[in-house]
Amino acid sequence: MVILRTPKGTVDYTPEESALINYILSTTTEVFKTHGAVNIDTPTFEHSSILKNKFGDDQKLVFDLADQGGEEYSLRYDLTVSFARYLAQNKISKIKRYQIGKVFRRDQPVITKGRFREFLQCDFDIAGSYENMLADAEILKIVSECMQNLFQNKKFTISVNHRLIHTAYLESLNVDPTLHSTICSTIDKCHKISEIEMRTEFESKGLQTCQINQILEYTKLSGKDQQFILYLKKLKIYNRDAGKKAIDDLELLQKYCNIFKCTDNIVFDLSLARGLDYYTGIIFEVKINDSDVGSIIGGGRYDNLVRDFVKSQELKVQQVPDINLSKTQLKKMKKRLAQVKNEDNENFEVPCVGFSLGIARICSILKDSFKVGVSDTKVFVGCFGDRLLEERLVLVSMLWDHNVPAETFYSNLHYKKQAAFALKAGIPIVVSIGADELIDNVVKVSYGNGLEEKATVKRSDLVYFLRNIITRL
Amino acid sequence: MVILRTPKGTVDYTPEESALINYILSTTTEVFKTHGAVNIDTPTFEHSSILKNKFGDDQKLVFDLADQGGEEYSLRYDLTVSFARYLAQNKISKIKRYQIGKVFRRDQPVITKGRFREFLQCDFDIAGSYENMLADAEILKIVSECMQNLFQNKKFTISVNHRLIHTAYLESLNVDPTLHSTICSTIDKCHKISEIEMRTEFESKGLQTCQINQILEYTKLSGKDQQFILYLKKLKIYNRDAGKKAIDDLELLQKYCNIFKCTDNIVFDLSLARGLDYYTGIIFEVKINDSDVGSIIGGGRYDNLVRDFVKSQELKVQQVPDINLSKTQLKKMKKRLAQVKNEDNENFEVPCVGFSLGIARICSILKDSFKVGVSDTKVFVGCFGDRLLEERLVLVSMLWDHNVPAETFYSNLHYKKQAAFALKAGIPIVVSIGADELIDNVVKVSYGNGLEEKATVKRSDLVYFLRNIITRL
Repeated sequence: MVILRTPKGTVDYTPEESALINYILSTTTEVFKTHGAVNIDTPTFEHSSILKNKFGDDQKLVFDLADQGGEEYSLRYDLTVSFARYLAQNKISKIKRYQIGKVFRRDQPVITKGRFREFLQCDFDIAGSYENMLADAEILKIVSECMQNLFQNKKFTISVNHRLIHTAYLESLNVDPTLHSTICSTIDKCHKISEIEMRTEFESKGLQTCQINQILEYTKLSGKDQQFILYLKKLKIYNRDAGKKAIDDLELLQKYCNIFKCTDNIVFDLSLARGLDYYTGIIFEVKINDSDVGSIIGGGRYDNLVRDFVKSQELKVQQVPDINLSKTQLKKMKKRLAQVKNEDNENFEVPCVGFSLGIARICSILKDSFKVGVSDTKVFVGCFGDRLLEERLVLVSMLWDHNVPAETFYSNLHYKKQAAFALKAGIPIVVSIGADELIDNVVKVSYGNGLEEKATVKRSDLVYFLRNIITRL
Repeated sequence: MVILRTPKGTVDYTPEESALINYILSTTTEVFKTHGAVNIDTPTFEHSSILKNKFGDDQKLVFDLADQGGEEYSLRYDLTVSFARYLAQNKISKIKRYQIGKVFRRDQPVITKGRFREFLQCDFDIAGSYENMLADAEILKIVSECMQNLFQNKKFTISVNHRLIHTAYLESLNVDPTLHSTICSTIDKCHKISEIEMRTEFESKGLQTCQINQILEYTKLSGKDQQFILYLKKLKIYNRDAGKKAIDDLELLQKYCNIFKCTDNIVFDLSLARGLDYYTGIIFEVKINDSDVGSIIGGGRYDNLVRDFVKSQELKVQQVPDINLSKTQLKKMKKRLAQVKNEDNENFEVPCVGFSLGIARICSILKDSFKVGVSDTKVFVGCFGDRLLEERLVLVSMLWDHNVPAETFYSNLHYKKQAAFALKAGIPIVVSIGADELIDNVVKVSYGNGLEEKATVKRSDLVYFLRNIITRL
């Protein structure tokens, strides 16, 4: 028995939705290319070991492939971890890239809220060692350009925070460092669950009431511009290494974003946590103001992900192969492996910063306000009187050969229905032939509002005539 | 321990490869749109039941997802079955669509020969009831246009056959109909394995030597044009229903392809079988002449796939729900379900014809001869003397805001190295500022061959000046 449904939490994209998605992707990749980005693509699934311990409390949501007598694979949870694996594997120390692909989360889906088990992401990242906060500022500039180009007049907010601010106040509250990640996963939910639920979750993770109170106090702080930075500098956490680094970073970021003229929509928000384990510096999320669709862009800095891959790979190189070796041989090999380690890996650090666009959520915001043409067909080839099938085929074939998007009908369609069909399908031009037109070597063209403009055109002039109309559409 | 490799039989696509893939996809989708096609997208995995018994002997190559406490899912083997499921599920009786996506086969990979476990496909299909062979001819016209636009001067061959020709001669040899599909799977390999291996495989599938001899004789027949059709009409199989239908179909196809001017590259080849179970009419494959990369396009007609989905779904509707019902209630419900069956499903037939482009194989043919620009960056912003970081940021930001693809450097880079960097990266224009330029409100522009042309441009004229150069590049 066949179940004619898509798997739970997945959807088909109709022609209308696909047209909107293609518009969103071309709009955003245009921005990326203006900033010099290149495109890469990685496989849909990875060795399961690649995806271990990267996603905080969400680690359990990773989809595994069945063991069919081979290695253990899992569907990717995001594009970032695969990107870092790509950099580590190929020893790439500098790249600005975008990537588009489906990602998978075995979550409880809520389709109406745009929470899927499979969804399309479009990622942009800058990898490489640069002066502090320059790449971060360009990232926020690119986020702003994407938002402006996609949503034109809609107001949006880029909430920005720094992972080390959480580190600083969790340290100051003597929270066990091994708990920081799971505490951040809870903080990440603060706009989705109630304060009472937050407290319960913090308690279940072993925090005491006074610690919880302080965390909740910190996460209520938010503000804009240099003024808020100055306020942060007066907090106690500014006296701690992590806190000073975070707040100085945000100040420098603010300065560069001012130069890039993209600070208008930026709000510093200490409640922002981002659940993923790999973030190390700035973190940010973007929402459309007054929209109940969640964040549509999320990202941040992850300086250690690539290095950690290289180091964990290194462990493998350091393992001595399982063969019989003399003591001298063993010593030699260990020495050589240690050299490999030093030369290749010790200093291989690739700090990265980037973001993901959630395409389905952007669609759900745009779909009501935005009309995209679904089909490109510009010309419908019809006939008067006789069916004239072969003559119509000759005509439509000529149009195809000149790259004029055209269709004719392959089943019986009464003459009266032809114009009606074209109008309904939104095809703006109808080219028709009849016995008389064939003799005179001409065609009749109907176009314009309701196909009311008429012309008789020589066949040899037809492509030129049509192109003229099409460019004016 | 982390394995820094992609899963077996999968690859990363580098920026160079991605640029080539994007070129291939935009070239082919342009052809599809000229023919009025729309785009859809379906999930990466399906309910396993959807994929059962569709792929002949290759059924075993379907990748399953792990049972993580839910329904049984499998990664899609091709895009065609998902397309048919989409039509059946949504009761769509007419559509011309293209779809681009990864497909998955748990095959023994041979990366050098372009045989992967995950690979990108681009599909085009025409679904709907039309007059015989019209959609089929348009499909071959589209295949021809794709090949010409992608490969320009390279010669190619479209091998065409009809599934019912196999049916006709297998029937005439009294081969058990339940074996037809697996026999076709073997015939499909005839250009990959030796005749002796073919014979062994046929024997293992229960055929007798005289049957095998006749099959091998049939599969050696090939030819072009009306002449070959006339030859086929003299064969005994033309006296059988299946054979007559197949040969008359091919004759009509030939006629319409003549009108579309796309017969030059078509060869009728009775050795062509296509392993998939769902084909019912014409089948075809495309190869570049004198290339050892296998077929790069494959397709055919599958008239029953959608109907079979609807019918198997129907069985489910006919099952009475597992609740306590009186005899009268039960009778009523069965009657209602039978009505549903009749109204909705009985006549829901969606004949389809289409093809898949193997993108990785097309890449492997194009990659040596074709150069695509990897990055779009047109302007590198540099400086003389002082570092002038903030002034460079102002300049590059202005260019971004006017959609001029531009980059500057975020780390220290000596002046001498700037032009060298731009030249090496293939960036055709360098815009530089120094203390003097800042005072005079101008910039220096280097462009042209080896950046040898120089100009001093007012800042207010810069965007206009650059656009002029860029359009001439």
